[in-house]
Amino acid sequence: MLFNIGIYEKTPWIVELFYNVNLSPSLDSTIVTATKERIVNVKILFDEIKQYIKNGDREKHLQLLRMHPDLCLKIDPATPKDDSSKDVDITKESRQEQGRAGLSTLTPDERTKFHSLNNQYKERFEFPFILAVRNASKYTVLSALEGRVSSSIEEEISCALSQVDKIAWMRLLTKVDYAEGTNGHGGFLTCHVLDTANGSPASGMRIELYRYEDGPEQNGKRTQQRILLKSFVTNSDGRLDGPALRGVEFDVGQYEWQFYVGDYFAKFSMSRLSGTPFLDVVPLRFGLDDPTEHYHVPLLVSPWSYSTYRGS
Amino acid sequence: MLFNIGIYEKTPWIVELFYNVNLSPSLDSTIVTATKERIVNVKILFDEIKQYIKNGDREKHLQLLRMHPDLCLKIDPATPKDDSSKDVDITKESRQEQGRAGLSTLTPDERTKFHSLNNQYKERFEFPFILAVRNASKYTVLSALEGRVSSSIEEEISCALSQVDKIAWMRLLTKVDYAEGTNGHGGFLTCHVLDTANGSPASGMRIELYRYEDGPEQNGKRTQQRILLKSFVTNSDGRLDGPALRGVEFDVGQYEWQFYVGDYFAKFSMSRLSGTPFLDVVPLRFGLDDPTEHYHVPLLVSPWSYSTYRGS
Amino acid sequence: MLFNIGIYEKTPWIVELFYNVNLSPSLDSTIVTATKERIVNVKILFDEIKQYIKNGDREKHLQLLRMHPDLCLKIDPATPKDDSSKDVDITKESRQEQGRAGLSTLTPDERTKFHSLNNQYKERFEFPFILAVRNASKYTVLSALEGRVSSSIEEEISCALSQVDKIAWMRLLTKVDYAEGTNGHGGFLTCHVLDTANGSPASGMRIELYRYEDGPEQNGKRTQQRILLKSFVTNSDGRLDGPALRGVEFDVGQYEWQFYVGDYFAKFSMSRLSGTPFLDVVPLRFGLDDPTEHYHVPLLVSPWSYSTYRGS
Amino acid sequence: MLFNIGIYEKTPWIVELFYNVNLSPSLDSTIVTATKERIVNVKILFDEIKQYIKNGDREKHLQLLRMHPDLCLKIDPATPKDDSSKDVDITKESRQEQGRAGLSTLTPDERTKFHSLNNQYKERFEFPFILAVRNASKYTVLSALEGRVSSSIEEEISCALSQVDKIAWMRLLTKVDYAEGTNGHGGFLTCHVLDTANGSPASGMRIELYRYEDGPEQNGKRTQQRILLKSFVTNSDGRLDGPALRGVEFDVGQYEWQFYVGDYFAKFSMSRLSGTPFLDVVPLRFGLDDPTEHYHVPLLVSPWSYSTYRGS
Repeated sequence: MLFNIGIYEKTPWIVELFYNVNLSPSLDSTIVTATKERIVNVKILFDEIKQYIKNGDREKHLQLLRMHPDLCLKIDPATPKDDSSKDVDITKESRQEQGRAGLSTLTPDERTKFHSLNNQYKERFEFPFILAVRNASKYTVLSALEGRVSSSIEEEISCALSQVDKIAWMRLLTKVDYAEGTNGHGGFLTCHVLDTANGSPASGMRIELYRYEDGPEQNGKRTQQRILLKSFVTNSDGRLDGPALRGVEFDVGQYEWQFYVGDYFAKFSMSRLSGTPFLDVVPLRFGLDDPTEHYHVPLLVSPWSYSTYRGS
Repeated sequence: MLFNIGIYEKTPWIVELFYNVNLSPSLDSTIVTATKERIVNVKILFDEIKQYIKNGDREKHLQLLRMHPDLCLKIDPATPKDDSSKDVDITKESRQEQGRAGLSTLTPDERTKFHSLNNQYKERFEFPFILAVRNASKYTVLSALEGRVSSSIEEEISCALSQVDKIAWMRLLTKVDYAEGTNGHGGFLTCHVLDTANGSPASGMRIELYRYEDGPEQNGKRTQQRILLKSFVTNSDGRLDGPALRGVEFDVGQYEWQFYVGDYFAKFSMSRLSGTPFLDVVPLRFGLDDPTEHYHVPLLVSPWSYSTYRGS
Repeated sequence: MLFNIGIYEKTPWIVELFYNVNLSPSLDSTIVTATKERIVNVKILFDEIKQYIKNGDREKHLQLLRMHPDLCLKIDPATPKDDSSKDVDITKESRQEQGRAGLSTLTPDERTKFHSLNNQYKERFEFPFILAVRNASKYTVLSALEGRVSSSIEEEISCALSQVDKIAWMRLLTKVDYAEGTNGHGGFLTCHVLDTANGSPASGMRIELYRYEDGPEQNGKRTQQRILLKSFVTNSDGRLDGPALRGVEFDVGQYEWQFYVGDYFAKFSMSRLSGTPFLDVVPLRFGLDDPTEHYHVPLLVSPWSYSTYRGS
Repeated sequence: MLFNIGIYEKTPWIVELFYNVNLSPSLDSTIVTATKERIVNVKILFDEIKQYIKNGDREKHLQLLRMHPDLCLKIDPATPKDDSSKDVDITKESRQEQGRAGLSTLTPDERTKFHSLNNQYKERFEFPFILAVRNASKYTVLSALEGRVSSSIEEEISCALSQVDKIAWMRLLTKVDYAEGTNGHGGFLTCHVLDTANGSPASGMRIELYRYEDGPEQNGKRTQQRILLKSFVTNSDGRLDGPALRGVEFDVGQYEWQFYVGDYFAKFSMSRLSGTPFLDVVPLRFGLDDPTEHYHVPLLVSPWSYSTYRGS
C-alpha cells in the first residue's frame, strides 16, 4: 500500500496526515470520493502532500531535516563515527542513493576540504547537509557545500527542504506502478529546429538522439557510454513527426541530441563561408528528470550562433 | 616565391595581375613601396587579390569556374570519363583536398542520386560543382548539391565564386610562412561565461577544451578522437586568464568546450530543483576556420537554457 | 481578371507565360483542371510564376531589371532628367510605392552622397537600383546603396531579382480579393512566454499588443502613433488562448508586444534583487510582412536576459 | 556622519555594530587602519555591514522585519488603523519611498484583493510585507503579494530580508557623497552589437539612447516621457567608442537603446527578403539599478531573431 512507504526520511507523519485527512475509511465517504476524483495523477498527489511541510512551522522543518543521515557517512565510509551521527540510521532508500554518488575518488586535499566544510555546515545550521542530485560527482557536492555553507539560516532551511521534497518525489515515482492500461508516467520528449538566419523552420535536418549509460568501471572511476537511440530528419515545420521519446522509453537520465547543422546550411549560399564550419555537428546534452512532464528541447540556430531551452 | 604558386585553380592571371600592378620591379619604386606599407598581413593581401575576381565580368567568372575539376572525378573514382571532364586536369592542390573528402561510402542509392544531381547541375550551369568545405561528408555534398542545383544562374555563379575564393584563401594560408619573429597567424581563442539566471559572470566554473582529431579508420570509415587539451576555471569576471589558444596552438580544426554547468549551479538555492539537472555538462563544439582571426566563443547559461555565438 | 494586371514592372510576359501554359482555354482541359487543383492559394500561384524568372537566362534577367524606373526619379523630384531615364516611364504601381518613401528630407550632403552612389551603381551594373522595402527611410536607401554598389555583377543581379520578386508578391496580394467565404489571407499571430530562470512557461504575465500607424506630419516629417489593440494575460502554458491577430486584423505593418516582465518576476524570491529591475516592461517591435503566413513571436526571458525570434 | 544615518529601518544596531568592531576610536589603531585600507568603496562597506544580518538568528531577523511599516499604510491612506500598525511609525526614509509607489489608482476590486492578501500575509508570517522595487505599480505589488503569501516561513523570511538589504543599499547610496576628486559612483554603461547571421560585429549601425522620465500627471495617472540622450554609430568592432554613460550621467533609472537593425541589414543581400522587415527599429528597455556597477547591455541580432542580457 502506497501510504506505508517511506518517501520522507523516517518521517511518516507527513504522508499519514494526508491519508487521515483525505482517504481514511473512518472519514465521511464524500470526502474520500472527492479525494479520488481530485487526485488523478501522482503529481497532484505529491503537490498536496508537500503542502503539509511547506505550511509547517520551524520545529517541524528542523525535525524533518535532522532525520537525514550525515552526507559524510554516505559518501566516505572512512568517516569516524561521532555521537550525533549514531543517532540517525541510514534508511534503505538513502543507502541506495548513496551507491550512485561516485565520490570514492576524493584526493587527500579534497577530503580535508570536504570534512571541513561539512563540519562548518553542521555547526552553523545544526542539521546535516542534504543534496538531491542524482549521480552527483565530488565536484557537485563540494560546490554545493561551499555555496550553501554561508547562507543565512532561513535560506538554508528553505534550500534543504527543497532537497527533501525532491528526494521524496523521486522516491515516490520509483514506487508507483503505472496505472493499468497506461504506459509510462505520461511525459514525452519533442524537438524543433528554427533557422534564425533565414527566419524559417529548418526542414530536412538530420538529428540523432543518444542516451548516456554507465560503462564498465576503469581504475575505480565511473565511465559513461553514449548509445544511439534513434535517427530523425526534421519535417517541413522543422519538427519530428511525433514525440522522440514517450511511454516507458521516456526514462530519467542523460540524453544528447546531435544536430547536423553544417550539412543543413550547406544547401544555402551563405554570405560568409567557412571551410571548416563554425557549427557543424551541434551536440545538445540534457537531463530528463521528471517522467511525468513534457520536455520540449529545441534548437534555434544560424551558422554562427545557437540557443536552446527547456520548453513545454 | 609566393606569386608563382597556384591558389586559384589553373588561373594564374589573378595573382599575376596583382603582382604586375603593385609589386613588379618594372614599376615606379614609390608604388612598390606603398604596396609594401599597405600589405601588412596576408589577409590584406588576399582582400586585394580577390577584388580582381569580384570586379571581373561574366566571361572571366565562367572561365575561372570551368577550370575546376568535376567533383565526381574527385570523390568517386568509378565515374566514367566523358569528354568534358577530360579537358580539365586535376591540380596537385585539388587532389590533396580530394583525399579528405571521406566520400568512399556512398550506398548505391546515394551514388545514383549524387550522379543525377551532379549531371543536372552541369547541364544547368555549364560549370562544375565546387564546394569549399574541409572534411565534407557525403551528406554535406548531397545537401549542397540539392540546394544549389535549383538556384538561378546568377545566384549560383555568386555562390561558386565564394567557394573558389575560400579555397584560394585556404591554399594561400598553407603556403605562407610565418613572418620572422612571429608565432602563428595572429588568431586566438577566448571564452566568457555569463549566468543569465543571476545576471552576473559565472565565476569558478570548470571548463575543459578538447580537440577532435582523426582516429584509426574502422571498416573503411573515418573515426574521430577527442583529445583533452586544457582545463580551466573561470575567474571572477567569468573569463579565462588569457587566450585559451594562440600562436601555433591556434590551428584550423574542430574543438569542443565542456562546461560544468551543473556543478556551478549546485552552489545556489535555485527555485526549481532537478535531481538530474536539465543542464549538467554542456558541450559546445565549434570549428576554427581562419587562423588570422579572434574567435570569442562564450556561453550564456541559466539552469534551463543556454546560447552561444561567434563573437569577436 | 488577375492575369491582366501588372505585378512585374512593364513585363507582362511572365504572368502570360504561366497563363498560356496552365490556364488558357486553348489548352487540353485536363491541364487546366490540374492547374486549378494544384493552385489552391495565392502563394502556390506565385511560387510557380516566379520560377519563370529564376530559370530565365541573363538576357531575360537584365531586361526585367531595366524596366524599373531610376530610384532618383522616384524619391527626388529635383533629379535632372537624362536620356536613359526618359526611356522608362514610371508605372502607376511604382508611383504609388514612391509616395511612401519618406525621402523628402535629404540634407545637401546626403543628396550629394545619394546621387553619387546611384550613379556609380548604374554605371557598374547598367540597371537601376531597386529596393523592395516598404516605408524605407533615407537611411535604409543609403545603407542599401552603399552595401550593394560594391557587389559582383552576379551577386547584384541576384539581389535585384529578389527585390523584383518581392515587389511582385506585394502587388499581387493587394490585387487578390479574398476568396468567397474567407476572411483575410490565412496568416495569424501567436505568442509564447518561457521563463528561462525557472524552466517553465511564464503564466499570468500581462501582455499588450500595439500597432504603429502614421500620425500627422510634423514640419514635413513623418510621425508614428502607437495604438493599443489588445491586452492579454498568458495562460498556464505561457500562451494566449488563440491567435492574437487573424483574418482581416492580421494586416501588414509594424506591431509591438509589451511584456510586463518585472511584475511577473516580482512573485518569485529571486536570488539577486533589483530596486529598479533590469527588465521591467519589455517592448518587442516586429513587422508583419506576409499576410498568408503564421507569425509566432515568442519571448524567452529571465530577470537578466531575453531573446525572441520569428517562429512558426 | 555616515554611521548615524538610518539605512535599516529603525534598527541602528546593525551599523553601530560594524562601527564598534571596525572603526571606533576606542579600538586599537591597527584595527582602524586595517578597516580603512580594506573598505575602499561603498560596496565593500555594505557587503560587510549586511553580514551582521545574514549571520543573525531568527529573533534578530524577525525583529528587523517587524520594524517596517505595513505597506497598506504606505500606499492606501484610507486603511483603517489597527493596533499592530500603530506600533510602527513610518520613518522619513520610508515615507519618501512611499510617495513614488503610484498606487493611488486601485479599483474597488483591486483594493479588496489587496487588503485580503495583505491580511493573509500578516497572519501567516507575523511581519509586514516589504517590497524593495522603486516605482512599483499596483500590478507589481499585487503580483509580489500573491506569489509570496504562499511561501514557507523560511522562504519568506529570506525573501523579506533581501528586500530589507536592498532598501538599505539604496538608502546608503543616496547618503554617500562622491569621494573627493571622483565623479559618480564608478558605474558605466557599454554596448556591443553582434550580427549572428554573418558571424561578425555589426559595424556602422545607428543606435540611440533614451531615458524615461516622469511626465506631467494626467487624470491622476503617472505618465512617462522618453528623452533622447545620445546617438551613436557602432565602430568596426560593433562597439561604441567609450562608455555610453559614466560618472554623474550614469544614474539609476529606466533607459532604452534603439537599434536601427533594418537599415543595417539593408546593405546585405539576405536570402529571404521582407518588404516590411521583421526587425526594423529594435527597442531595448532596461533599468540601471546600481550606480557602482558596469552594465554591459549588448544586442545579438539576425534579421529574424535577437537576444540581449546583462553582461559585465
